[in-house]
Amino acid sequence: MDVGSIGLDTTRTPFRTVTEVIGGSATFFGIVASFFAETGLVGVIGDDFPNEHLRILEERLDLTGLVVKKGRTFRFDSQFGYDLGVRTTLKTELNVFGEWSPVIPEKYADAEYVYIGNIGPDQQLRVLDQVKDPKLTVADTIEFWIKNQRDRLTELISRVDCMVLNDEEVRQLSQTPNIIKGAKTILELGPDLIIIKKGEHGAILFTREMIFPTCGYPLEEIEDPTGAGDCFAGGFMGHLARKGDISQKTLREAVVYGNVMGSFAVERFGVERFLTLTMEEIESRYQKYKRMVSF
Amino acid sequence: MDVGSIGLDTTRTPFRTVTEVIGGSATFFGIVASFFAETGLVGVIGDDFPNEHLRILEERLDLTGLVVKKGRTFRFDSQFGYDLGVRTTLKTELNVFGEWSPVIPEKYADAEYVYIGNIGPDQQLRVLDQVKDPKLTVADTIEFWIKNQRDRLTELISRVDCMVLNDEEVRQLSQTPNIIKGAKTILELGPDLIIIKKGEHGAILFTREMIFPTCGYPLEEIEDPTGAGDCFAGGFMGHLARKGDISQKTLREAVVYGNVMGSFAVERFGVERFLTLTMEEIESRYQKYKRMVSF
Repeated sequence: MDVGSIGLDTTRTPFRTVTEVIGGSATFFGIVASFFAETGLVGVIGDDFPNEHLRILEERLDLTGLVVKKGRTFRFDSQFGYDLGVRTTLKTELNVFGEWSPVIPEKYADAEYVYIGNIGPDQQLRVLDQVKDPKLTVADTIEFWIKNQRDRLTELISRVDCMVLNDEEVRQLSQTPNIIKGAKTILELGPDLIIIKKGEHGAILFTREMIFPTCGYPLEEIEDPTGAGDCFAGGFMGHLARKGDISQKTLREAVVYGNVMGSFAVERFGVERFLTLTMEEIESRYQKYKRMVSF
Repeated sequence: MDVGSIGLDTTRTPFRTVTEVIGGSATFFGIVASFFAETGLVGVIGDDFPNEHLRILEERLDLTGLVVKKGRTFRFDSQFGYDLGVRTTLKTELNVFGEWSPVIPEKYADAEYVYIGNIGPDQQLRVLDQVKDPKLTVADTIEFWIKNQRDRLTELISRVDCMVLNDEEVRQLSQTPNIIKGAKTILELGPDLIIIKKGEHGAILFTREMIFPTCGYPLEEIEDPTGAGDCFAGGFMGHLARKGDISQKTLREAVVYGNVMGSFAVERFGVERFLTLTMEEIESRYQKYKRMVSF
């Protein structure tokens, strides 16, 4: 199950601008996870949500949990510079997403793999309250919640199995400049797993027993980093769900699938790359990565 | 053979300041390489160079190529902030290093493995002119030379076998924001190997046939990043020299030894960590790294 934002993204780079394409954490995660396992989407859109975008979701995801509300869909407008490294937010319009409180459909109450993308910690906690006995819950957050709702976020962290964070978020949350030490500090809050997403530099998985550092899949052409983190999570959880276990071995493979799916994500704008991607291409890149990093 | 600067470093962090400890590119490289193979140092010091520092070099390196000049030794004073990420140079005193031109002793003319640390491209080219038929020449540079002596640096790059660069240097040299594409562009200038050093994020080796990305060895405690790049190069070339080949397999192992030696370097100030380090600790960390990243 995949809970989070669904929006219309306008993304501007020096090379191209796309206007109101389908975006949002739940969208990226869900489309990626759907390659690996059946995925149900829980989110909200306005009645202005374009039909063509809806079809993209319908074809790939169970939409029992999708609420259509009277009003405008969440919109996000941002800009990247030449190196596609730093994003500047131009406009965030929460619209119907602003007052939304996630309601988990009865049929998902037994969901085993639960991803809670970046929404407020209160809403994230409400999701946890509605699921019975999940095998693995994974949550994401952003700087905004670390700064403004640290207590609620800490409660969330103590209740999920896995937090997915970038290095800056680890530093802020742990209040230590070293991310390795920082991740260990966050593990002490309760979760069994911490994943640090480092963009082009890969990701590091932490459990109480191991550290698994990985490098990013090297890419010569990057069009748009939007959604890469949620796509990472989609590959990570997707692989765990299809394998049906969370052994150390499967967790390691899952982090690599996360890197692989993140690398596909940034090759094209928005979810574009996934509309033509095949499972064969995914497995082939996984194997190529494995050969590439072996020594 | 190891050519480069030898200096007295003052390094200030919020946690500790060390004053006039032994530093310089040739020092870091040589001390690390000496764990793997006999290494000859070519450099210059002033007559004020402390005896205790000289003993550190004497015990580990062949000093036939060390010149002692009347005057003061090269000094470098720099400062790091809390995250130990960004260095601010407070003072650079070239002193006797300023007018030095490397003279390669007769006995090193046949050196097989030649490292030319960061000195001006003209001086680096002069080193290449004095070696007969090296198996592998590796050079380092800094932003200053890319900005101010691009032509001479390009000539150097076309004549060495391997350039070791950080990601910013790759971007500046190649004038492309993507470091993967940038490294491939630099390969076209002539060298067979490019290594991008990415600090805590590891390193990537490029040849015309392969890309070998590696992650950094995860460390919870970092005291001083000074010299990590030269220590990386020392581990890399040291392993190649002891193996005596530059096959794809050995090159990959060598990059990992580079990461391992870089990780030891930053654990203590200056060369401190290497004064007590054993070959057993090196091999043990190499094996630990190998297990850590496997999947």
